[in-house]
Amino acid sequence: MSLLVVGSVAFDAIKTPYGKVDRILGGAATYFSLAASFFTDVKVVAVVGDDFTATEEQVFRAHKIDTTGIVRESGKSFFWAGEYGENVNEAKTLDTQLGVFGAFNPQVPEQYKESEYVFLANIDPALQVNVRKQMKSAKFVGGDTMNFWINGAAENLAAMLKSVDALLINDTEARLLVKDNSLPRAAQTILKMGPKALVIKHGEYGANVFFQDGAFGIGRHPFRAPTLPIEVVTDPTGAGDSFAGGFMGYIASQQKLTRDVFKRAMFYGGVMGSFAVEDFGTQRLQKLTRAEIDQRYKTFLELTHIE
Amino acid sequence: MSLLVVGSVAFDAIKTPYGKVDRILGGAATYFSLAASFFTDVKVVAVVGDDFTATEEQVFRAHKIDTTGIVRESGKSFFWAGEYGENVNEAKTLDTQLGVFGAFNPQVPEQYKESEYVFLANIDPALQVNVRKQMKSAKFVGGDTMNFWINGAAENLAAMLKSVDALLINDTEARLLVKDNSLPRAAQTILKMGPKALVIKHGEYGANVFFQDGAFGIGRHPFRAPTLPIEVVTDPTGAGDSFAGGFMGYIASQQKLTRDVFKRAMFYGGVMGSFAVEDFGTQRLQKLTRAEIDQRYKTFLELTHIE
Repeated sequence: MSLLVVGSVAFDAIKTPYGKVDRILGGAATYFSLAASFFTDVKVVAVVGDDFTATEEQVFRAHKIDTTGIVRESGKSFFWAGEYGENVNEAKTLDTQLGVFGAFNPQVPEQYKESEYVFLANIDPALQVNVRKQMKSAKFVGGDTMNFWINGAAENLAAMLKSVDALLINDTEARLLVKDNSLPRAAQTILKMGPKALVIKHGEYGANVFFQDGAFGIGRHPFRAPTLPIEVVTDPTGAGDSFAGGFMGYIASQQKLTRDVFKRAMFYGGVMGSFAVEDFGTQRLQKLTRAEIDQRYKTFLELTHIE
Repeated sequence: MSLLVVGSVAFDAIKTPYGKVDRILGGAATYFSLAASFFTDVKVVAVVGDDFTATEEQVFRAHKIDTTGIVRESGKSFFWAGEYGENVNEAKTLDTQLGVFGAFNPQVPEQYKESEYVFLANIDPALQVNVRKQMKSAKFVGGDTMNFWINGAAENLAAMLKSVDALLINDTEARLLVKDNSLPRAAQTILKMGPKALVIKHGEYGANVFFQDGAFGIGRHPFRAPTLPIEVVTDPTGAGDSFAGGFMGYIASQQKLTRDVFKRAMFYGGVMGSFAVEDFGTQRLQKLTRAEIDQRYKTFLELTHIE
């Protein structure tokens, strides 16, 4: 089944303890669509500037990602500069230049509207809701958000939470969203705000999914996915978006949304996140093969399963 | 097989967001031996004061724990007062009174010396090494330590690390021990210091075990155990010691130390820790049944395993 993602396609400058890059292709929709492309057909809705050339387009094309919905505007693409210290879970933002992304008002191309799987990457929740409304055939919608919208756009965010089946956020965002430091308790409060499933990403500690009682006919018991204990995290940028891509991509590739499909989606999410951090930007995802994914999925099973 | 533990038997005053107790039976050896008693025969080496009465003794006796090695001295038992905020992983110490524990010099009773399984709970590493030397039949020795010894007793701690098969510590202790914020990297450095297996307890995120290459003939791949996402953590005190009790108790109950035994030990450790935090002090462990343990073990499998 095809999977539509709306979000940022950007350029990043990144510094980590393992090196730096001055300008590399990034953006949530980029990481997401590359990760998801190993599982299903992906269509992207985004906006880019004149600096997005055939070279960048080819990164998507090489993975058969549909770029019809990437609108080109006159100006610069979104640019982010950030730095990571020893704590790989938190980036320090050094610079943000919105460029053409500042006036982004995503319109879904007609030929995208039959997509049954949708991911609303981290953008203004008002725009997320707008895209959601355009997707009348959607069967399963995932969404992400960040501190900026939690703090400054509560009303639109509330509407967004009601419009998604699954919300994927990290520890800090979950605690902030409902002002509760207990993650298991925060999870239950967030589920009452709309999403049937809540995936909380714990960075190096893996991820947890919580369900509304009876959601998708698969009960309320949570499920936990690991990450690899990686000694060298070259660049943590995009790990969460790559998790979301693996998670949504795997779900979109399956006939039915069973509890086991959900579990495997959590594992594939972790797998894709673990690859993303092995090199700067999307370079590792660009070179990845399905065989490597299957091999690491087995490693994740070995890491968690008892015979 | 029988399991010997040396450590503190104490009284605690504890305040958490869910209530407070002014004086309750505690101490690492108490939590450990209660947790382990569901799996194997347990023998305790400890020192207590006049305030340790038949009531406290009965807590051990009710679980068939051998208390021959609990020495009574004139004076007060070790006393600790602490408070937890919303972060259940970190206690704020309000008061520590060593009492008779200050001059603790553990002697292993003759009839304890044939124990093949030994746990050196958190005490002065010089004493841990001394006990280890007395246990000539030991097949598998586990140990714990804390910041106080890492900062102040490096030389004795180095000897202790060489004398244990498995070291069980938490995130903060692992990072501090080798001055490295990357846990996976810190783990590899610690393994070079002696222990064949290193269990790092991540609090609410579960625990990870790392192995020296080829240790116990079971390879070097790590393994990860979950915890329950518990909404109400009534009292986090003793969670780590209860984990250690479940872990060591299960290993001592098995004929051979295979990779699967190690994995199940990690799960039983998590199970015992998850029970310990449900009530103040050791009250939950005192009331626990083996059927409840088996049930929660199944819940842990459901939380992590894919069909």
